[in-house]
Amino acid sequence: MKASRFQYRRRVTFAETDLAGIMHFSNFLRWMEEAEHAFYRSLGLSVHPVQHGFPDTETGWPRVRVSAEYFRPLQFEEEAEVEVLVAEMRTKALRLAFRIWKSPDQAAARELAAAGEFVVVAVRALPGTREMKSVPIPEAFRERIESVPAEALELPVAKRA
Amino acid sequence: MKASRFQYRRRVTFAETDLAGIMHFSNFLRWMEEAEHAFYRSLGLSVHPVQHGFPDTETGWPRVRVSAEYFRPLQFEEEAEVEVLVAEMRTKALRLAFRIWKSPDQAAARELAAAGEFVVVAVRALPGTREMKSVPIPEAFRERIESVPAEALELPVAKRA
Amino acid sequence: MKASRFQYRRRVTFAETDLAGIMHFSNFLRWMEEAEHAFYRSLGLSVHPVQHGFPDTETGWPRVRVSAEYFRPLQFEEEAEVEVLVAEMRTKALRLAFRIWKSPDQAAARELAAAGEFVVVAVRALPGTREMKSVPIPEAFRERIESVPAEALELPVAKRA
Amino acid sequence: MKASRFQYRRRVTFAETDLAGIMHFSNFLRWMEEAEHAFYRSLGLSVHPVQHGFPDTETGWPRVRVSAEYFRPLQFEEEAEVEVLVAEMRTKALRLAFRIWKSPDQAAARELAAAGEFVVVAVRALPGTREMKSVPIPEAFRERIESVPAEALELPVAKRA
Repeated sequence: MKASRFQYRRRVTFAETDLAGIMHFSNFLRWMEEAEHAFYRSLGLSVHPVQHGFPDTETGWPRVRVSAEYFRPLQFEEEAEVEVLVAEMRTKALRLAFRIWKSPDQAAARELAAAGEFVVVAVRALPGTREMKSVPIPEAFRERIESVPAEALELPVAKRA
Repeated sequence: MKASRFQYRRRVTFAETDLAGIMHFSNFLRWMEEAEHAFYRSLGLSVHPVQHGFPDTETGWPRVRVSAEYFRPLQFEEEAEVEVLVAEMRTKALRLAFRIWKSPDQAAARELAAAGEFVVVAVRALPGTREMKSVPIPEAFRERIESVPAEALELPVAKRA
Repeated sequence: MKASRFQYRRRVTFAETDLAGIMHFSNFLRWMEEAEHAFYRSLGLSVHPVQHGFPDTETGWPRVRVSAEYFRPLQFEEEAEVEVLVAEMRTKALRLAFRIWKSPDQAAARELAAAGEFVVVAVRALPGTREMKSVPIPEAFRERIESVPAEALELPVAKRA
Repeated sequence: MKASRFQYRRRVTFAETDLAGIMHFSNFLRWMEEAEHAFYRSLGLSVHPVQHGFPDTETGWPRVRVSAEYFRPLQFEEEAEVEVLVAEMRTKALRLAFRIWKSPDQAAARELAAAGEFVVVAVRALPGTREMKSVPIPEAFRERIESVPAEALELPVAKRA
């Protein structure tokens, strides 16, 4: 069975906050990437398999488009859940959707802090150069990952704080 | 005369690169925010006027939506230009467009590395609480900033590397 | 019984690497701070207790001196252990020692990646100002934390890679 | 004539602050590295000469020891000066001293925010491996850099805020 969703837990560190007293907006995007990589690891995959003895170290995975929408802030030491959803699997690109949830363990208090999307492409360097060219997503990823049904991507109605 | 555009120069630092050998995608968004703040400073304004003796320290400026599109990577020590354009000025929100240019000094080599957009709102804490409420953009900002004509926002046709 | 040691696990994220392909040196210091805060949390304490309803939100904990020594690099997605040791408990300051261990689960491969030290002071703002003054370490910390015996601080002999 | 000192200017960005309202301690160390690299650039050198067509791309420059002492905080948008001093030039290692100055343009208000030190070694990968070995500092660096006289390294007496 292929995977199309993943949950990742993270706690806000001191260095991730800013003088507004909450997590800096750019760090939500770093959390999304962390969750993406944790999703791959859960399937025995890696975007840069230094640690894994995995054969393919040649494919790069640049982001070509990212976006994030912010609903509620995250505080220092607050634990939140990053949900990863595979929105679309194209030949050479992957579209990933993310939701970041506050109070992941309390159904009643669970609220959307942020949502986002990445479009990621598989690339390889042209032989002998540093020029990158998009290539088909490696078979190992294609065998283990598939997209969620469209209705799973509907964003819950979230009143901004 | 009101301002609607700004140019900001920046060089990629070592800590901003990642193991792909280029600037990490999240740092493009930090550069955009840096350029936004430099734009305000150029007008005697600040989002948090600690250094300026400026009267208003109460207004916060959270980002409610950000996006970025990536066209060409930036290398370590590469100097690039961040262009800020005021895309829209609403009562309580500002929409800013950004372009990050490679080789800013060589007309022939000038290429788009990335483009992005922020929607930023003005907020204040409800008295005696940490709950934030959107408020009209402060007069000092309104007096000095206006939006660019719509045609200025057309993204130059950029072939992705 | 008071606590004087703590272990914290962490995996290197993509954004923490640099173009040398390994974790940037500054992030080892961020990991040390993260482990310090996780140590306090394990005792029901926090340096900024937003999430905890803990009474004291007035005390700040600036670092007045930090150092780190690097023995072996950490790779992307590598999991390591940060060990926190309370080296000294003074009236107004805390000296913390850190060791970062590679391969924490394999006794044979366990190697020191880095070691470090923080001197941290407790401070409070002078009433009505932003000027900070050192103060005695709060009782809640003093009741739960004590220093390790001196011999625990001897750094294992580590041949640099 | 060889160079042994350098001055670098920098302004605190929003993302560099933390919830204490001031620059996070780890970012002082990033500023020191930035200033170090700007010093090399001023001499036509680079630790990773992607942009320069400089012949040597093989030498790495890991930090083996860093330390910082903090005297006064830096605020958001505050401009400060990072002073780089070459403390010692060994065969395979460089010891650099740093001072970060507040109010660099006002002699009367000029105050030490932080001081620090890096020990940096030149390394190269053993052929066909990723194992690093220390090597003599490249000639190009040796020809352009020398250490300051010992008395230049005395830290000005700084009363901690």
